Amino acid sequence: MVRGNVMVGQSGGPTSVINSSLAGVFKTAKDAGCAHVYGMRNGIEGLLDERYVDLSDYIKNDLDIELLKRTPSSFLGTCRYKLPSAEKSPEVYERIFSILKKLGVEYFFYIGGNDSMDTIMQLSRFASKIGSDIRFMGVPKTIDNDLDCTDHTPGYGSAAKYIGTAMKEIIRDAKTYPNDSVTIVEIMGRNAGWLAAASSLSRAEDCDGPDIIYLPERIFDHDRFLEHVAERRKECGAVIVAVSEGVKTSDGRYVCEANKKSTVTDAFGHKLLGGTALYLSDFLTANTGVKSRGIVLSTLQRCASHLVSRRDITEAFMAGADATVAALNGATGKMVVFERISDAPYSMVTGICDIEKIANKEKCVPDAWITADGTGVSNEFDNYARPLIIGELSPFMVDGLPRHLFIDK
Amino acid sequence: MVRGNVMVGQSGGPTSVINSSLAGVFKTAKDAGCAHVYGMRNGIEGLLDERYVDLSDYIKNDLDIELLKRTPSSFLGTCRYKLPSAEKSPEVYERIFSILKKLGVEYFFYIGGNDSMDTIMQLSRFASKIGSDIRFMGVPKTIDNDLDCTDHTPGYGSAAKYIGTAMKEIIRDAKTYPNDSVTIVEIMGRNAGWLAAASSLSRAEDCDGPDIIYLPERIFDHDRFLEHVAERRKECGAVIVAVSEGVKTSDGRYVCEANKKSTVTDAFGHKLLGGTALYLSDFLTANTGVKSRGIVLSTLQRCASHLVSRRDITEAFMAGADATVAALNGATGKMVVFERISDAPYSMVTGICDIEKIANKEKCVPDAWITADGTGVSNEFDNYARPLIIGELSPFMVDGLPRHLFIDK
Repeated sequence: MVRGNVMVGQSGGPTSVINSSLAGVFKTAKDAGCAHVYGMRNGIEGLLDERYVDLSDYIKNDLDIELLKRTPSSFLGTCRYKLPSAEKSPEVYERIFSILKKLGVEYFFYIGGNDSMDTIMQLSRFASKIGSDIRFMGVPKTIDNDLDCTDHTPGYGSAAKYIGTAMKEIIRDAKTYPNDSVTIVEIMGRNAGWLAAASSLSRAEDCDGPDIIYLPERIFDHDRFLEHVAERRKECGAVIVAVSEGVKTSDGRYVCEANKKSTVTDAFGHKLLGGTALYLSDFLTANTGVKSRGIVLSTLQRCASHLVSRRDITEAFMAGADATVAALNGATGKMVVFERISDAPYSMVTGICDIEKIANKEKCVPDAWITADGTGVSNEFDNYARPLIIGELSPFMVDGLPRHLFIDK
Repeated sequence: MVRGNVMVGQSGGPTSVINSSLAGVFKTAKDAGCAHVYGMRNGIEGLLDERYVDLSDYIKNDLDIELLKRTPSSFLGTCRYKLPSAEKSPEVYERIFSILKKLGVEYFFYIGGNDSMDTIMQLSRFASKIGSDIRFMGVPKTIDNDLDCTDHTPGYGSAAKYIGTAMKEIIRDAKTYPNDSVTIVEIMGRNAGWLAAASSLSRAEDCDGPDIIYLPERIFDHDRFLEHVAERRKECGAVIVAVSEGVKTSDGRYVCEANKKSTVTDAFGHKLLGGTALYLSDFLTANTGVKSRGIVLSTLQRCASHLVSRRDITEAFMAGADATVAALNGATGKMVVFERISDAPYSMVTGICDIEKIANKEKCVPDAWITADGTGVSNEFDNYARPLIIGELSPFMVDGLPRHLFIDK
């Protein structure tokens, strides 16, 4: 059966498994008979400049598909471009649809987070307005795990596995010295503390886990921080604090803003965060004299493809594949979602959900899962997150390092 | 054959494979008939307080040995304790020797770097002075690779593999955005640039590697830094700079000192470094307006046991084993060294070397291996370092995370 062509893009912050979703779209579309699967370079921003590739030029066989799944960051390049409203700037939409028409595109996939789902919403609304039958589907992706209407998002499990592993290793490192010290580990996450909470996964028979975890769901108080650390120092020698970069004080300001001359914002008006751990480390030493250091897990949280969760990468592929099947069956203006059937044994099914319900919304860690004093998470979080980090997928090693698939080096 | 007992300790900054050397000492000594292998907690500092364990209480079978090899940081705990001179403080030495005598110790092993070899030197000198026949052997360990008289040190290969892998992943992440940016990656290393140079290993068929590498072997010049970045920005969109935390300006000051209110030193008088990448990132943005970010690879360079070099961990075990064999055969006041027979195929043999030749000396990257403009390293470096990062050793995964052997959680 001959089908129309496909256009697929990646948007927003990359993850370790975003390319597994791309592989899922590509393979499913090709198997279903789509002649061309085009990939937009740097998302919708690149498409507007007619920058795209035919993915068959890069993915030539099943080995390439496996290599693509093991390649971190966005294979096609990404963007942080916010579509203007169709009322204000109809010419942008007309341009996109004319490019798609020229290429014979019938199915459009956008792999991304919150902001990217806004793009799918705008495009599917415009399609409906002009009577275009191009189908627009969202494929969820974000390490932040903050999308609504889905049990979790592809990318989160691998980030959580990386954070849990790094925490175990950092804790071993911190506790090897005989003297007291406080290690503050900064973890990504703007308003939702899913990633910081993942530091608790390091708690096991061989590791006590972090002594304190601060999530952005709770207001950060400098005095209570000093109290919490003082309490923990009585119990253990080296104290380990995991803190979300997004923690805020009661006046609504990010803690890290105290450290900065100016605050930069991105295209979606989000303030760029960072510096929380170093600031708190300095603050602690200045106020108590205790030796303290800040460690920033940084971009490796989202691009350490050498340490992915097998379940996450499999589900990411499934999200791309199932979005494609849904579009081929006529769906548009929807996003693939995951519905959990049970924690143990873990079981989930995919579904599709109206994009209007998802775009521009954020899902936070439930209040009931955060301990009363706001310094940790409960067992419910472990039951939820543990299944998502299970299993490994070995990188393809060449000359001692992982091999990646690439367009530009 | 019944042998005397063993005392083994770990000292200085930990590595991902320091416990493989401990496993090598333990297994070789037990196999040779030593009744007790004691481990000092927190090195010589703990021994002075009579804090030690009988390692057989923790390493009960061959599975435990494999788990110990996969455990990062110093299993026994470490210290940064400098022995006072025997002339000034003979009582310290008398105390150590009386503890060793009480425990029936005939063989003493210290796994460490430069400063730890000083400890072995002092103890073996004192033994000779008082006519003790306790044998003192050094087992090399340092991610810095800066020990003299040995081709390389256990710990370096795994740190280099981690740095090469992280660089590939960070470069993919940095180049995925359409806009220009400069990413500055800070890598450990005080006076020797072996670790920063390892960032060049990321250069391969699928990756261009960092665009600029600054080693502490060359003087850092702020104006030339701006020129180098400006040149590279013409050639490539996103520019990646790898910089050693130990780079200094012509006045002998660390670049990172510009960023600090005060400078803290450790027991050996070394200044604590850090902050170079963030400082340079701010400096670059202030002077050129280009978007820049700093990434600090931090402690994971020395404790990411989830990503060790198989060759490194095997050689680390061998270093511990061969030190034990040498001590059983009568050697004292020596350190195990590696002598390379050939790069390709890689071949090396171990030997022993007088500790006097090694202690308190630092080996730097040869001048001939650094490019003329001081922004990279030559193929000779790759020929040297590549064999050291080859092969993997899978962690033992439990509930999604690597399992470790431990004394204290």
